[in-house]
Amino acid sequence: MILFFMSERLSAATTHRIAAKSRCYILIPMRSLFLLLTSSLFLFPALQADDGYRLWLRYDPIPDQALGSSYAKVFSHFYLVTSSGTDSPTLAAARAELRAGISGLVGITPEITLTRLVAQNNLGADGFAYTSNREGSTIHANSDLGILYGVFDLLRHIQTCQSLDKFNVTSTPRIQRRLLNHWDNLNRTVERGYAGFSLWEWFYLPEIRNPRYRDYARACASIGINGTVLTNVNADAQILTPAYLVKVAGLADEFRPYGVRVYLTARFSAPIEIGGLKTADPLDPGVVAWWKAKIDEIYRYVPDFGGFLVKANSEGQPGPQDYKRTHADGANLFADALASHGGIVMWRAFVYSPDNNDDRVKQAVTEFGPLDGKFRDNVIVQIKNGPLDFMPREPFSPLFGSMPHTRLAAELEITQEYLGQSVQLAYLAPMWKEVLESDTYASGPGSTVARVIDGSLFVSGGTRPPDGFSSAGIKQTRPEAGFHPTDLNATATPTVIAGVANTGTDRNWTGHLLAQANLYAYGRLAWDHSLASEAIATEWTRMTFGSDVTVNDVVSKMLLSSRETVVNYSMPLGLHHIMAEGNHYGPGPWVDKLARADWTAVYYHKADEKGLGFDRTSAGSNALAQYAPEWQKLWGSLETCPENLLLWFHHVPWDHKMKSGHTLWDELCLHYQQGVQEVRTLQRDWDSLKGRIDEERFTAVRQRLVRQELDARDWRDACLLYFQQFAQRPFPTGIEPAAHPLDYYESIKLRNMPGHR
Amino acid sequence: MILFFMSERLSAATTHRIAAKSRCYILIPMRSLFLLLTSSLFLFPALQADDGYRLWLRYDPIPDQALGSSYAKVFSHFYLVTSSGTDSPTLAAARAELRAGISGLVGITPEITLTRLVAQNNLGADGFAYTSNREGSTIHANSDLGILYGVFDLLRHIQTCQSLDKFNVTSTPRIQRRLLNHWDNLNRTVERGYAGFSLWEWFYLPEIRNPRYRDYARACASIGINGTVLTNVNADAQILTPAYLVKVAGLADEFRPYGVRVYLTARFSAPIEIGGLKTADPLDPGVVAWWKAKIDEIYRYVPDFGGFLVKANSEGQPGPQDYKRTHADGANLFADALASHGGIVMWRAFVYSPDNNDDRVKQAVTEFGPLDGKFRDNVIVQIKNGPLDFMPREPFSPLFGSMPHTRLAAELEITQEYLGQSVQLAYLAPMWKEVLESDTYASGPGSTVARVIDGSLFVSGGTRPPDGFSSAGIKQTRPEAGFHPTDLNATATPTVIAGVANTGTDRNWTGHLLAQANLYAYGRLAWDHSLASEAIATEWTRMTFGSDVTVNDVVSKMLLSSRETVVNYSMPLGLHHIMAEGNHYGPGPWVDKLARADWTAVYYHKADEKGLGFDRTSAGSNALAQYAPEWQKLWGSLETCPENLLLWFHHVPWDHKMKSGHTLWDELCLHYQQGVQEVRTLQRDWDSLKGRIDEERFTAVRQRLVRQELDARDWRDACLLYFQQFAQRPFPTGIEPAAHPLDYYESIKLRNMPGHR
Repeated sequence: MILFFMSERLSAATTHRIAAKSRCYILIPMRSLFLLLTSSLFLFPALQADDGYRLWLRYDPIPDQALGSSYAKVFSHFYLVTSSGTDSPTLAAARAELRAGISGLVGITPEITLTRLVAQNNLGADGFAYTSNREGSTIHANSDLGILYGVFDLLRHIQTCQSLDKFNVTSTPRIQRRLLNHWDNLNRTVERGYAGFSLWEWFYLPEIRNPRYRDYARACASIGINGTVLTNVNADAQILTPAYLVKVAGLADEFRPYGVRVYLTARFSAPIEIGGLKTADPLDPGVVAWWKAKIDEIYRYVPDFGGFLVKANSEGQPGPQDYKRTHADGANLFADALASHGGIVMWRAFVYSPDNNDDRVKQAVTEFGPLDGKFRDNVIVQIKNGPLDFMPREPFSPLFGSMPHTRLAAELEITQEYLGQSVQLAYLAPMWKEVLESDTYASGPGSTVARVIDGSLFVSGGTRPPDGFSSAGIKQTRPEAGFHPTDLNATATPTVIAGVANTGTDRNWTGHLLAQANLYAYGRLAWDHSLASEAIATEWTRMTFGSDVTVNDVVSKMLLSSRETVVNYSMPLGLHHIMAEGNHYGPGPWVDKLARADWTAVYYHKADEKGLGFDRTSAGSNALAQYAPEWQKLWGSLETCPENLLLWFHHVPWDHKMKSGHTLWDELCLHYQQGVQEVRTLQRDWDSLKGRIDEERFTAVRQRLVRQELDARDWRDACLLYFQQFAQRPFPTGIEPAAHPLDYYESIKLRNMPGHR
Repeated sequence: MILFFMSERLSAATTHRIAAKSRCYILIPMRSLFLLLTSSLFLFPALQADDGYRLWLRYDPIPDQALGSSYAKVFSHFYLVTSSGTDSPTLAAARAELRAGISGLVGITPEITLTRLVAQNNLGADGFAYTSNREGSTIHANSDLGILYGVFDLLRHIQTCQSLDKFNVTSTPRIQRRLLNHWDNLNRTVERGYAGFSLWEWFYLPEIRNPRYRDYARACASIGINGTVLTNVNADAQILTPAYLVKVAGLADEFRPYGVRVYLTARFSAPIEIGGLKTADPLDPGVVAWWKAKIDEIYRYVPDFGGFLVKANSEGQPGPQDYKRTHADGANLFADALASHGGIVMWRAFVYSPDNNDDRVKQAVTEFGPLDGKFRDNVIVQIKNGPLDFMPREPFSPLFGSMPHTRLAAELEITQEYLGQSVQLAYLAPMWKEVLESDTYASGPGSTVARVIDGSLFVSGGTRPPDGFSSAGIKQTRPEAGFHPTDLNATATPTVIAGVANTGTDRNWTGHLLAQANLYAYGRLAWDHSLASEAIATEWTRMTFGSDVTVNDVVSKMLLSSRETVVNYSMPLGLHHIMAEGNHYGPGPWVDKLARADWTAVYYHKADEKGLGFDRTSAGSNALAQYAPEWQKLWGSLETCPENLLLWFHHVPWDHKMKSGHTLWDELCLHYQQGVQEVRTLQRDWDSLKGRIDEERFTAVRQRLVRQELDARDWRDACLLYFQQFAQRPFPTGIEPAAHPLDYYESIKLRNMPGHR
């Protein structure tokens, strides 16, 4: 139990903004101290200005005194039991975290005892188990990193005020490599980054190291993230030169105690650009030798380098097809050179050819399907959740069900490129869960996307971590070449999940304070994709805003409804890719003349006098054929297709009768209006928390909700005025009149937007 | 007096980096509280991790308990006496500051009484006077802003532990407009910015307002800065469109309580680019009307808009010469449209013509001299301190002595473009003082640059603030058109000083923690240019690092020697402009082939087999002729020219005997070596403070000093190897051998450097 109060209102808070260090200390102005010393204890909580820097790792005192007392009795002594046997920076970090957390939350300084014990097989490389009773708490793991993860989990249980019987936990991650992908450029701009600029201060490295590097790694570790791709998939070969590798090594040093390994993006044409070669042909012996030497060099700088993420032959990036080679040829080039070091290649399947006029959403399967089985064992094909490009709602990518002989990773976008960026509220866990729980039927019912990427689908017996496809007899894995020491069970191609980071230099890391929930949810789902969106939302809210039940209820509710709200006012009923060109922020259904047809909006919504939507049935592009028969049946019929994907799969007549009884046109209008109203509800909900959340965080979110309402109205008005030209029907009752004529919206040109290259 | 301690070492500091809020509170872990409650008070100070965000406004408790007690007796009641009579946001800010400061420093909450009184003429618009005795403290001012300035000054006296007899102060600024110039682009890059990115979050404004805007304005006010030019002198016309003006208004709202007025840069071709006109000719009636309407529009958004800063016909910027008009025609175009609103135009004299092959340092006088007297009364010609471009050492610009009929402003560069940016330590006050105290002899001895810009030079009687040139009979000023309400005495062209800001999004504002001293020194000198560099250094050090005498002595000494150290290892003996091309960071004496000869290094150092340096005597470019005869005599002779400007004015034979007895070549070598050794001394000095400064700030500075030593060696080795090619002489004893051959240094290409457009 901890005293925690201030006698003064923070009237000078805005004149005196100094981030709070409110760990394990009580804060008492002098006058109060005399009061304290001369009178009985009078305790009350207070709200301190808070800039959000601490993320969910707040460690403020548990306000429930009874619970705090019971915690104090149990958490006075910890036994950390690991098979590693020697102390390490990771164990030091674990102890420091435990001390900071316990003393902050519970108000005592715990004793910590380190013990060596043989490995516990059920815990794998990163797993942990802990038990707590009156004699103390014991955290078991096979690795030091497992201990650190156990510490964070135990502290999370305390911070969310779990009852003491909940402190017997065994947990192992379902996916081995839980990565963040940073689309960060070397000039510190971040492609699709909306929280300031890149955290990596390249010019100042390696000598000058921002303390934030450690804080970043610590935040990653707290949610189980164990790898980070530092650079943009639209890659710059300079990162592979010695001048930069020494800087990469500096970052790797900072991250290592927290178990966060460094990966880089490889520019396919690097042998030409920085190697002086005439070609980057993956089958050219000189190119093969160059990459071998380059990768050997990287490992001299970073001995536990994780590997490469590659975007090739996609949106102008160079790649093997430039030399009439396949994606497999390209990926295997890197894989062979990385194998001896235990490195992996994540090869992105986000491709659509400039020469292919077929429906863009079909092209990944068209290109990658035939390559199944042709990749080396340390290649993972990385697939965006949907077949198009991180839309507010897409069906799952059919590629997940199309490559049974290849390790597949899911690429989720934490940064809200198409969902209002860092201005609008959109909690993404429900969207990710939709995809993870989608059934590919690739190996019969239950073949969910989650089971494809966690490696459990094709593995007999279901042991975890998976050993690739070997025991299913589909593909024989090579003996382990030397993966990271913590990958104790990584005897085969590791399982991978990737999240495109929403972090940046903004003080609160994510721009929108509530977007911290997306980073958190990504990490939690990467560890265990079976967690429910609701549970994660509740957990994050408690971690972030404390134990006020009203705050918890309201914020959780806001989070859980928020993504559907964005869908409603931007791209409802299966609409997609109708946003403004380039910046992807506001509406742009009129976008029709770009270098490629499949970059326009009209290509996707296909509005005409008859109706709206993209016919992807056999009568149209037949993208539907890439899915299992079960989906073809459900989605192929106007009657059975879920309405939230209707316009994705069908060109629907304006007068089509929807389940509500409305026509499509009326329903479309009402969805846009509904979206605006829901933003106003978000505003009201948030405003109801005034006084329950510190003023700084309250105001920060409030200002963004004000802007979101303006944005939502722009979306509604622009889209409805535009589509009305085709529908030629009046607005139904309840639709607020547009503030401006259509040409006003069409003329908006946002400049200097965040998030560009 | 305040208790302030922690029982725990900050062992978890790096794992748990949360900025300190160490205002007026004591921080006590729970266990210590019991100790405190059950035992006698045992007090000891502790060092908290500190990220530097608070700048010099720290308000930590006064450690000297006796002094603290005496303060507590005197500072319990304040009377704020102003002629404004009504309460205002500025007075609210003053009260909040006073409360925060007194309660933080002294540990009491003062009573504050507001009183109205008639104006005190000796205080002018921004001045203040305060007295303190046992009855309380009284702060007088004619304006609310004067009160705020008085509050900051009084708190500064407390924070630097002045004895009570020092609390009777009257202070008025010597210059009326004390401005920061931000070379910030709308995409948030900062030209010559080395502390992260632009503080102005244009996309999110006006709805979303970073709390840092207030903190910025508060920091400005604390050192007397009362205006800010938000945008780069290489201007973007978009800032003048309604989409941006509404955002500018948002920033102005945030700054206004702290008396910081907003100014913008005007792109001369804006009438074409955003106005749809065919010309930007300043004498074209359509252009005149367009600017009039545009300026009227700006004042609707920002009623107290300050005016424009303009870079025209310089380095590719558009300007009046594009239409065969003069700089005066251009400046007067804006001046006329701004006059009715009380706005001013700051017209930069940093020009050198693409068509003029004359010595670049002469061209400003050549171009602007003939225009003296042709500018409107609300035009101020803004001149960089030296005639070239912010070199580590230059003589003062001769233009300061060449335009007696024109109001002139000095432009100082706080950001260290040519002095190691945010990596190297260079306290700039000594450099600025060199220029401010230089005598132009324009009106006889004592005609210092400082007196030119503060308006006192040509004013009979010397009243301050000056009323322009009228009383000297040189120029008749127009009746006041309506300047800012606080400019009570601004009955003529205001006096102006400009500092190119070194601030950015870095947590500590300035990148290098010790570069905060430059921002501080700029503000203090802008208020009172008679302050000594040493006094400002001592004051800043005490404000920033507290009262530890050892820390004060060491840090002050480091600051005061630092600029000369940079000169020594980069451009000693009057060398100039021999830095790397583009980024202006490292050495580049070999730079010889650029679009313009006067952008190269060889143009300036003119090394050949005979000797080194630029002959600017009558035998050479005769730039010397632009200075008063006194300077011509001193600088014109090899024997009398100060050696620190020798190579600026003379081409000196390699064997020329220096005052030390060494040849020029040996002396040059020894200066470079000396610079490197001085950096090592800086390192040792700083390292001696370990344990006396919190670990976070200690480490931050230490890392930069490590990098600086590497940089200094690169400068030495590159320059000496390069010049040795011409000198053909061996290195004298004591010169460390170069780490690499010359071609290594020539091949260095730094990429993605901070500070570019």
